Amino acid sequence: MQHTDYSPGVLQYIPFFYVIWSDDLLSASEVSVIKTAVAGDKTLEVEDRKLLNNWLNRGNPPLNGELKNWQRTISNSGIALVESDTYPLSTFSQKIVCHYNAECPFNDYLKDIELNLGIQPNHYNHLFDVEVVHERSSGYFDPNELDKILKGDYSREIDTFRNTLADPLFQWQIYRDKEKFRPNVLLQLKHLAKKGYGARAYPREYGGIGDINTYAAIFENLMFADGSLAVKFGVQFGLFGGSIQKLGTRLHHDRYLAQTAKGELLGCFAMTETGHGSNVRGVKTTATYEQETDTIVINTPGKNDNKEYIGNALHASMATVFAQLIVNGKNEGVHAVLVPLRDQSHQVLEGITIEDNGYKLGLNGVDNGKIWFRQVRVPRENLLNKYGEITDEGTYYSSIKNPNKRFFTMLGTLVGGRICVAKGALSGAKMALAIAVKYGLRRRQFNDNVKVQEDLIMDYPSHQLRLTPAVAKSYVYHISLARLMKEYSDEGNSDMRKIETQVAGLKAVVTWFATETIQECREACGGKGYLIENRIPDIKGDTDIFTTFEGDNTVLMQLAAKGVLSDFKAEFNSAGFASVLKLLGSQIGAKLAAINPVYTNKVDKEHLYNPEFHQHAFNYRTKRLTYTLAMRIRDYIKRGMPSYQAFLKVQTHLLALGKAYSCQLAYEHFVEYSRGMEDEKYRLLFQKLGTLYALHEIRTDASWYLEQGYLGSTKSKAIRQRVERLCTELRPHIESLVDGFGIPQSCLTAPIAN
Amino acid sequence: MQHTDYSPGVLQYIPFFYVIWSDDLLSASEVSVIKTAVAGDKTLEVEDRKLLNNWLNRGNPPLNGELKNWQRTISNSGIALVESDTYPLSTFSQKIVCHYNAECPFNDYLKDIELNLGIQPNHYNHLFDVEVVHERSSGYFDPNELDKILKGDYSREIDTFRNTLADPLFQWQIYRDKEKFRPNVLLQLKHLAKKGYGARAYPREYGGIGDINTYAAIFENLMFADGSLAVKFGVQFGLFGGSIQKLGTRLHHDRYLAQTAKGELLGCFAMTETGHGSNVRGVKTTATYEQETDTIVINTPGKNDNKEYIGNALHASMATVFAQLIVNGKNEGVHAVLVPLRDQSHQVLEGITIEDNGYKLGLNGVDNGKIWFRQVRVPRENLLNKYGEITDEGTYYSSIKNPNKRFFTMLGTLVGGRICVAKGALSGAKMALAIAVKYGLRRRQFNDNVKVQEDLIMDYPSHQLRLTPAVAKSYVYHISLARLMKEYSDEGNSDMRKIETQVAGLKAVVTWFATETIQECREACGGKGYLIENRIPDIKGDTDIFTTFEGDNTVLMQLAAKGVLSDFKAEFNSAGFASVLKLLGSQIGAKLAAINPVYTNKVDKEHLYNPEFHQHAFNYRTKRLTYTLAMRIRDYIKRGMPSYQAFLKVQTHLLALGKAYSCQLAYEHFVEYSRGMEDEKYRLLFQKLGTLYALHEIRTDASWYLEQGYLGSTKSKAIRQRVERLCTELRPHIESLVDGFGIPQSCLTAPIAN
Repeated sequence: MQHTDYSPGVLQYIPFFYVIWSDDLLSASEVSVIKTAVAGDKTLEVEDRKLLNNWLNRGNPPLNGELKNWQRTISNSGIALVESDTYPLSTFSQKIVCHYNAECPFNDYLKDIELNLGIQPNHYNHLFDVEVVHERSSGYFDPNELDKILKGDYSREIDTFRNTLADPLFQWQIYRDKEKFRPNVLLQLKHLAKKGYGARAYPREYGGIGDINTYAAIFENLMFADGSLAVKFGVQFGLFGGSIQKLGTRLHHDRYLAQTAKGELLGCFAMTETGHGSNVRGVKTTATYEQETDTIVINTPGKNDNKEYIGNALHASMATVFAQLIVNGKNEGVHAVLVPLRDQSHQVLEGITIEDNGYKLGLNGVDNGKIWFRQVRVPRENLLNKYGEITDEGTYYSSIKNPNKRFFTMLGTLVGGRICVAKGALSGAKMALAIAVKYGLRRRQFNDNVKVQEDLIMDYPSHQLRLTPAVAKSYVYHISLARLMKEYSDEGNSDMRKIETQVAGLKAVVTWFATETIQECREACGGKGYLIENRIPDIKGDTDIFTTFEGDNTVLMQLAAKGVLSDFKAEFNSAGFASVLKLLGSQIGAKLAAINPVYTNKVDKEHLYNPEFHQHAFNYRTKRLTYTLAMRIRDYIKRGMPSYQAFLKVQTHLLALGKAYSCQLAYEHFVEYSRGMEDEKYRLLFQKLGTLYALHEIRTDASWYLEQGYLGSTKSKAIRQRVERLCTELRPHIESLVDGFGIPQSCLTAPIAN
Repeated sequence: MQHTDYSPGVLQYIPFFYVIWSDDLLSASEVSVIKTAVAGDKTLEVEDRKLLNNWLNRGNPPLNGELKNWQRTISNSGIALVESDTYPLSTFSQKIVCHYNAECPFNDYLKDIELNLGIQPNHYNHLFDVEVVHERSSGYFDPNELDKILKGDYSREIDTFRNTLADPLFQWQIYRDKEKFRPNVLLQLKHLAKKGYGARAYPREYGGIGDINTYAAIFENLMFADGSLAVKFGVQFGLFGGSIQKLGTRLHHDRYLAQTAKGELLGCFAMTETGHGSNVRGVKTTATYEQETDTIVINTPGKNDNKEYIGNALHASMATVFAQLIVNGKNEGVHAVLVPLRDQSHQVLEGITIEDNGYKLGLNGVDNGKIWFRQVRVPRENLLNKYGEITDEGTYYSSIKNPNKRFFTMLGTLVGGRICVAKGALSGAKMALAIAVKYGLRRRQFNDNVKVQEDLIMDYPSHQLRLTPAVAKSYVYHISLARLMKEYSDEGNSDMRKIETQVAGLKAVVTWFATETIQECREACGGKGYLIENRIPDIKGDTDIFTTFEGDNTVLMQLAAKGVLSDFKAEFNSAGFASVLKLLGSQIGAKLAAINPVYTNKVDKEHLYNPEFHQHAFNYRTKRLTYTLAMRIRDYIKRGMPSYQAFLKVQTHLLALGKAYSCQLAYEHFVEYSRGMEDEKYRLLFQKLGTLYALHEIRTDASWYLEQGYLGSTKSKAIRQRVERLCTELRPHIESLVDGFGIPQSCLTAPIAN
């Protein structure tokens, strides 16, 4: 038994005090937790209590010499810290007391401190100069529970589908040759079609269940198996089948939908042209109605006006072609027409030229092609005529008189696809994170010379900062996208325009997030992340285009911002003066709050972890950016600048607003969701994930908040520290969190993740 | 002739006034330029002069109504704005006067304003509601001149080499199958070897010219042809040959160097192990000296202790193996030993196992493999014995007694390779930028309805912000890396440790920059950027690993920061009290400057564009981060924390310091370089590029500067505006700037760039 100057009562508290004083984040509430314990702890003498309370003075913290003494007392004991003990720090304390004293009962007051402050071994295991018995995961949270939460209402369907993916047919392989890759993807697609998975969004009479939510859940899980398969699945059932379902009428449904669902009719969605991706309204392909023959003539005017990048182009026998519809010499705007591409023996029909787009960065299992039409004739009934038709008299008719509105109504039907794209990108990010986190929990590198093992790289603060916020964000985006899909699919929902704005913003934010996260994961796995067998390269390559297709992110962000702006203008214009005053009032209100130095420099944990603070910050940013944007545009227009030019001048402002709005929206969805969670244990976890999301976002845009005076320096710095701290707090749960993504074991084949 | 209320004298100034009042950036010096012109302009009446001066009052700017009148007067004229006119705005003014009046001579005073203010059409072509006759490039700067500047002293050698690359042998092709790709790369490599390109860094007696600068210039140009070829070239001549040259002695040079140079002896550099990439000191492979047989026995102890990711492993017949050297039972640390791998018929020798690493994200033309050794015997003389040898008596001897120092001296010889890696990554970024910029100057998208053509996407502010700062940074990094290579190659340079610090930081900064830039270019080219034929996918895949190999960036950044910290400590310790005071003084000085509200909110162009401001900001940041880092570590250590743990706690701080230091260093090199440029026209251009680099960097870290009180809100916002403005100012020159990278036409094969 060694000697120590500290009484047994004080000694047992020393590891705790050393931990809480190791950084400068001690908050009032933490102090009060410890004070309560000390006051109640019957193992303490009066003198002990006095000394301990003395050491709790935030205004007059213990001197460095004191801290050094504590450290020495602990390390001289030679006691190992065992992370997997039930109450590791309390147990550790107990063992130290045992080392110096004969008696050393376990102290429940210490356990209470440990629980109440949420102190976790990985907060402090670097502080002590003792051997640490590491563990990969605390096992405190059950990944299956997390997975169940994320699956939501679609648990049964998803589980069945994941079992389907375990079929050897879906075993992931390295395909370098597209000519070998594509037939395999086609085989997989047909297998899924046979099982009815492609049809889920279609009405029951065509083999579906009429639920796009289920379809979306399948799509996002399909990404775990293979990106090419998911995208080809999306083209066949979502875009081609979806265009028939949503732009066509009964005749088209009856004729084609069941066949499409079964994979007997393969189709493509021919919208994009070489010169027209984002600006669909400007496509050059024409569909001219010819009254004499009662046919529509599809034509590609110039060599470079071909349809471009059309998925399924080499396998399909039909295409939904978007073209300028010309009736009686008048251009009625862009409409969709079904055009057969190949005959029964798969020969390309006369007048049609199809070329392979060649190799791409990823998705080489998808047969993208270019298509040219030379005066190709189809019957009038091939026009998908839900929103505009050619009557028997040969005249054009649409119930939507405004051509602008008609165009956007048609495009609006694509919004479901955009949510799927975001969900798919998120699946890619989840998978890359699962691989990188699991690798970080196996790979060791460098060490303190006294230790036998090198450190796990997941225990490095910089590594935690790389991966943990992305894990938290994945949870937030998952919940938000599920919610958006639900709102979109709710046909009673009247405000479809608002949902379109929201989807535009979130699609951009989530796909950018995926690109960035997967890149980070590649680097976090070092050279191992560069090997194709470890999957990250394919995930990166496959999802990279998600920021571009189904709407280029830069364009979508501006769309989102313009949506926000219209709401603002509408509020301004409709309700009149009172509304303007109210709006300005809320502006000024926010401004006042920002100027209030108590608020701008409030740094206690309670405030920083409070969703109300986060929501206020997000709300303030969106409002302020909207307001200043509106004012800038107004000023330009007042000076006589045409509005097209004015909008160009504020383009970067629009992008900032689009991002701010989407970030706020996702968090709102998430907070609402987690508030409703019944199980407290998981609710608290979700709230912590939300806090990390929010503080990380605020941190990322700290320069803006500082410029506005919304954050003071101290608060901004405190937020940075809190982000790092939260990453460390989540370290024991990080493996459960990525397991909670529910990636089927049959898909998680990366050797470094096993 | 239409009527206007403005006199001809006033009228000619109106386009100018409209432009300068269109944003809120009018500076005092701009006002004075115009005032001088107005005062001297003899075409003006007294009344005209009075009115114009009235409109120049910054405190009382013209009303919006007035601006609107100007705008209307201009657009009613219906005059087109022709960008390619020699003085476009003056000519435009003249034409407007002609429209409203009979007489309209060209006015040289206006030309002077245009020149002195550096007003360029793309600043203002969006302001007027008139037809703009666009141009892709102003042609003001000569790309060949720029290229010559970048080539520096190696112009002749580089030009010859670029001609070599035009040989059909180097024609870029899509290779999906590594078994077809690799033989071709080997062929190319041997061709280059025969021409003597591999040997440039070796002494003359072995076929070289003893100049690593030339070698590096060849390497960076080789990246334009193909990443795999460049990397294999680097492995064979830089790593393998370099290890013989720098770690070996005369015997090794005579026996192997000429053969290596000619590509007759192919070799690999076997350092990394599966479990040991960054922590080379911990490699497990052993090299045990056996006195009886006078041989060294190379052994891989465990299944997972194999050499990993070794380039050239499938083609090489010899390897430089890094292993723990054990002599007389004592571990003397890591040393390099030459180990034959294959016999003359290319059969793997007994005891050696080599496996292909398989497919990677990129560089599939490089044959990376794993190597195991089972008690493989080589003669004692195979030890590369420059820094440590086994004597004839069978004892270990090294002139460097400290094993630590010995290890780092050996590793120090790798520093040249690190510079090459950074240069190679930069070539990738340049190539991606050239492709994206050229595409942006051809691709049109959306438009104002009144215009016939859609806008060039390069004319979108968001697109400019995406690409232009990266172009500017490429120039800065190019100059800085060339300078570093020169200092490194200067054998008289005594402070090699300092250069190692600098190289570590810059390698990390530049390779991260490349990864980010190439990703941005991919997205900026939309779907076209996703096609392999357009090269960006391969550039991305090939360079992605540059952030990991030759030192993982995260590790290197910490190395750089620790270097800065040691300098700081050395200064502290050596010079004693006076030095400490001096240091603290400079701290306080910087702090005072930061608090001075005049400085923190100084927003005039002269100040923001002044390199002294940028250097002060960079210097302040490095100093401050160093100081606070030192204080934090000292505090932790004072509290008794072991230093290994203390450094872990400050890991993210270390990364921030490493970045800050490298950013400052690159800018210092660049400013010094551009100050010395004789041709004023190009010097001014370089200074503008430097300004964009600096303001963009400050902007990126604005939250830190705001937190420190170094920047005030107004200044921070002004910097953001200036960054956008600079991008627009550089728009007419952007094509010349990317052409200035000197990418050979034979390499720039991307269809979208042609």
